[in-house]
Amino acid sequence: MTEGSGRAQRRASRLERRSRTIQQLPWRTLINPYEPIAVASDDQIEAIHDASMHILEETGMDFLHQEALDILSAAGADVTPGTERVRFDRHMVEEVVSSAPESFNLHARNPEHDLVIGPGSINFGMIASPPNAADADEGRRTGNFTDYCSFLRLGQAFNIIHFFGGYPVEPVDLPPGTRHLDCLSAFLTLTDKVFHAYSLGRQRIQDALEIVRIGYGLTEAELKEQPSVFTVVNSSSPLRLDGPMIEGLVEMARMNQPVVATPFTLAGAMAPVTLAGAIALQNAEALAMIMLTQLANPGAPSVYGAFTSNVDMKSGGPAFGTPEFTRAALVGGQLARRYRIPYRSTGGTAAKAVDAQAAYESQMSLWGAVMGHAAMMLHGAGWMDGSLVASFEKFIVDVEMLQMMAEFLQGVAVDDDELAVDVIAEVGPGGHFFGATHTLERYETAFHTPLISDWSNYETWLEAGGQTAEQRANRIWKQALAEFEPPPLPDERRAELEEFVARRKEEGGVG
Amino acid sequence: MTEGSGRAQRRASRLERRSRTIQQLPWRTLINPYEPIAVASDDQIEAIHDASMHILEETGMDFLHQEALDILSAAGADVTPGTERVRFDRHMVEEVVSSAPESFNLHARNPEHDLVIGPGSINFGMIASPPNAADADEGRRTGNFTDYCSFLRLGQAFNIIHFFGGYPVEPVDLPPGTRHLDCLSAFLTLTDKVFHAYSLGRQRIQDALEIVRIGYGLTEAELKEQPSVFTVVNSSSPLRLDGPMIEGLVEMARMNQPVVATPFTLAGAMAPVTLAGAIALQNAEALAMIMLTQLANPGAPSVYGAFTSNVDMKSGGPAFGTPEFTRAALVGGQLARRYRIPYRSTGGTAAKAVDAQAAYESQMSLWGAVMGHAAMMLHGAGWMDGSLVASFEKFIVDVEMLQMMAEFLQGVAVDDDELAVDVIAEVGPGGHFFGATHTLERYETAFHTPLISDWSNYETWLEAGGQTAEQRANRIWKQALAEFEPPPLPDERRAELEEFVARRKEEGGVG
Repeated sequence: MTEGSGRAQRRASRLERRSRTIQQLPWRTLINPYEPIAVASDDQIEAIHDASMHILEETGMDFLHQEALDILSAAGADVTPGTERVRFDRHMVEEVVSSAPESFNLHARNPEHDLVIGPGSINFGMIASPPNAADADEGRRTGNFTDYCSFLRLGQAFNIIHFFGGYPVEPVDLPPGTRHLDCLSAFLTLTDKVFHAYSLGRQRIQDALEIVRIGYGLTEAELKEQPSVFTVVNSSSPLRLDGPMIEGLVEMARMNQPVVATPFTLAGAMAPVTLAGAIALQNAEALAMIMLTQLANPGAPSVYGAFTSNVDMKSGGPAFGTPEFTRAALVGGQLARRYRIPYRSTGGTAAKAVDAQAAYESQMSLWGAVMGHAAMMLHGAGWMDGSLVASFEKFIVDVEMLQMMAEFLQGVAVDDDELAVDVIAEVGPGGHFFGATHTLERYETAFHTPLISDWSNYETWLEAGGQTAEQRANRIWKQALAEFEPPPLPDERRAELEEFVARRKEEGGVG
Repeated sequence: MTEGSGRAQRRASRLERRSRTIQQLPWRTLINPYEPIAVASDDQIEAIHDASMHILEETGMDFLHQEALDILSAAGADVTPGTERVRFDRHMVEEVVSSAPESFNLHARNPEHDLVIGPGSINFGMIASPPNAADADEGRRTGNFTDYCSFLRLGQAFNIIHFFGGYPVEPVDLPPGTRHLDCLSAFLTLTDKVFHAYSLGRQRIQDALEIVRIGYGLTEAELKEQPSVFTVVNSSSPLRLDGPMIEGLVEMARMNQPVVATPFTLAGAMAPVTLAGAIALQNAEALAMIMLTQLANPGAPSVYGAFTSNVDMKSGGPAFGTPEFTRAALVGGQLARRYRIPYRSTGGTAAKAVDAQAAYESQMSLWGAVMGHAAMMLHGAGWMDGSLVASFEKFIVDVEMLQMMAEFLQGVAVDDDELAVDVIAEVGPGGHFFGATHTLERYETAFHTPLISDWSNYETWLEAGGQTAEQRANRIWKQALAEFEPPPLPDERRAELEEFVARRKEEGGVG
């Protein structure tokens, strides 16, 4: 065998390897260069703000934990003695909320995956917290740790996924008291992106902070300097914040870790049936939670979360990706910008099949998030059935849609080379551009290459099996899992992590 | 039987009838209340404009008909003797184009279906001109007059369809020379909405104008006062306008009927591979065609059409609903507004199945059209497979998406009643809004009711057959056809129409 043929073989093998690798966009810090869509006028925004202030001043909110009552009372809020009811003066609200930063960096274990959470930035997150998983081969099943790890690998593998917003599926086969230890360690061994810790009591958050500290290789003081893990705190709308959430919020804020304050204001159920009313309630609750973070630790990174949707008035169940959902997402962004706090929005669909409905409802949510300038979009990939299912095929469909959106955000380049007036002159009337040097030099990278969209002609498509997008997505997630290589984690950190988890398990986890 | 029970029966029968009728949005004149998305900066728009002026000044455009050469030459354009090449001075371009109106009304046979074509208005059209039709039962077939009439009935039945942009499917079973006579009459007997006439030579347009005159019950002078039928004129990019198109354009402009000037600038094939270059070429061609309408009849209604997309660089075939497509649609709107000419954009997808891809590509086009402030969106419903197929199920999926967009455009109502501060106080922390009077009074109409989106829970969905959106769409279009009642047409007009068509057929139609 000559040297030449050896080289040819190596090249062939390289080409083969390349063709086996999924072609996707590189990791990018995404900035939305376009002005946000303003659904409400400035006057309307002020009227919603004013309504929220009335709600906080007159009705108030229940905080179901003494620690919150003490913090709020000490800061001058009106706590009705012997109750959990707190009322806030509007001047106090504006003043306390103003200490939240407009922008902050959220650090990943891999610095290349650090996130900017601030004006114009947009970061897409995985689906979080569904009790079930599903794929086209095995159908729907209760969430388990195997599926959990598969979703972590997929979220790590695709560059358009910027962070994990919680467990991509709840691993119900793990014991509840130690589940968080296994799940959080897996984030550090299978991924190197930003992740989330649940605010389900103080102990779980303390465990999470220690796991992050070990995995990132930081001292406690360094961790406190560097936001590295975030939590979503949901109010129990209307106007109630539960004890375990309060413990998590306070603990995270004191450690200078971001709290995403998100009311789930479902219009017609836990919120007024009118959109403005649901948003006014959302605004009151989000601001009340952000106040608590700022009073626990002034300047702690906080995010204004929005998750206003509407119920299906026939079944009483929640709907997602509706026209109301999109408008609420955009108005939520306007409010967050009014307070100069980074904004979090949400993906979603109620579809049970990975079909046209799944796509168009998710697109409606996506446009609301992107044009509302959400710095964080939770549940961006994999969501099905109103958050009850994490779907492997839907994950790939969403990755495709998120990649398209990332490319949409690239604006337009305009210079002599791009305007190509000379090329147009050269080709002239009645010619074509296929063979022009200008085309040949650029055609491989000129346009976005899709992941699953089929652009072939009908006959070619038929010959290839006449597959739907769901069927093509099935092949892609399996390929991504087969090709997966976990990111490096230094041995000593891995050992320390294992030791910590083992010790905490011996102690019984969270009782 | 008592009177009471008779009444109850009648009510029951009325309810039954109502439940059999498809619930949809009412006819609306849609206005986009939101600012358009600006993808290009003002400077970039001026650079694209400048490039287009260079193209028209230096390269010029071929007009393959003596009549156009005469009109353009008489107005001062530079026609190279013995050729079809025309070059334009940029001052002439700006001056001539400025006579086109910024807004006009496009009259339907039913005045309730009149369209406003101007700033902020948006009107959705049916798919036009595919050679094939398809549905889930019978699959794909060559276009025929039966399917043609079915699509006319569907376009008439759904209020979100504002106009017909051409034949929703090409009825290949009708003889080419008289096909236009049957097709245009069918618009008048099966629909009462605005429709389109093809610019395939002077005779077909003259026939169309006469058919419209008869069907609308107008004199020729009245028709000339009242834009009532429109044509799309496509250049053969790059930089060529064919003879039959010129004849149609001139005839329509002289009769004061709208011409939608639309280059099909496919980046990488008939246009430069760079987006800015493709748009500069689009702009040059669109302005050149609009100039011809204005010189044929100053002030004639014209529309700036955009259809810039990119080829699939693997197959050379066109792609639609790509991120490049959406950006181009938005930049096109910016250019049209620069010249104060109403804007036309386009829906589209390359998907072969009515699946997630069909939905997300169509959504990407839809957002480009709506947020680009397109007064006319052609191919808004039914498009599949890169314009090669009109699909019955996809039509319903698109109607759903268009209705959602129409609801998205409703903004947000903000007043005391909508803000519901008192209701929030009444329900209070920890309560719920299901039983509140404020909810009960509004719940039936508070939110948009979808056509095919399934919001039921998983078990209910499974029991109902576990259907996809495509399967649910199949039931809806059949129901719409079964319930169809043609709009009234006065007997004398119908008779005159039949007489005209019979006479023209005897004459042999268009030879």
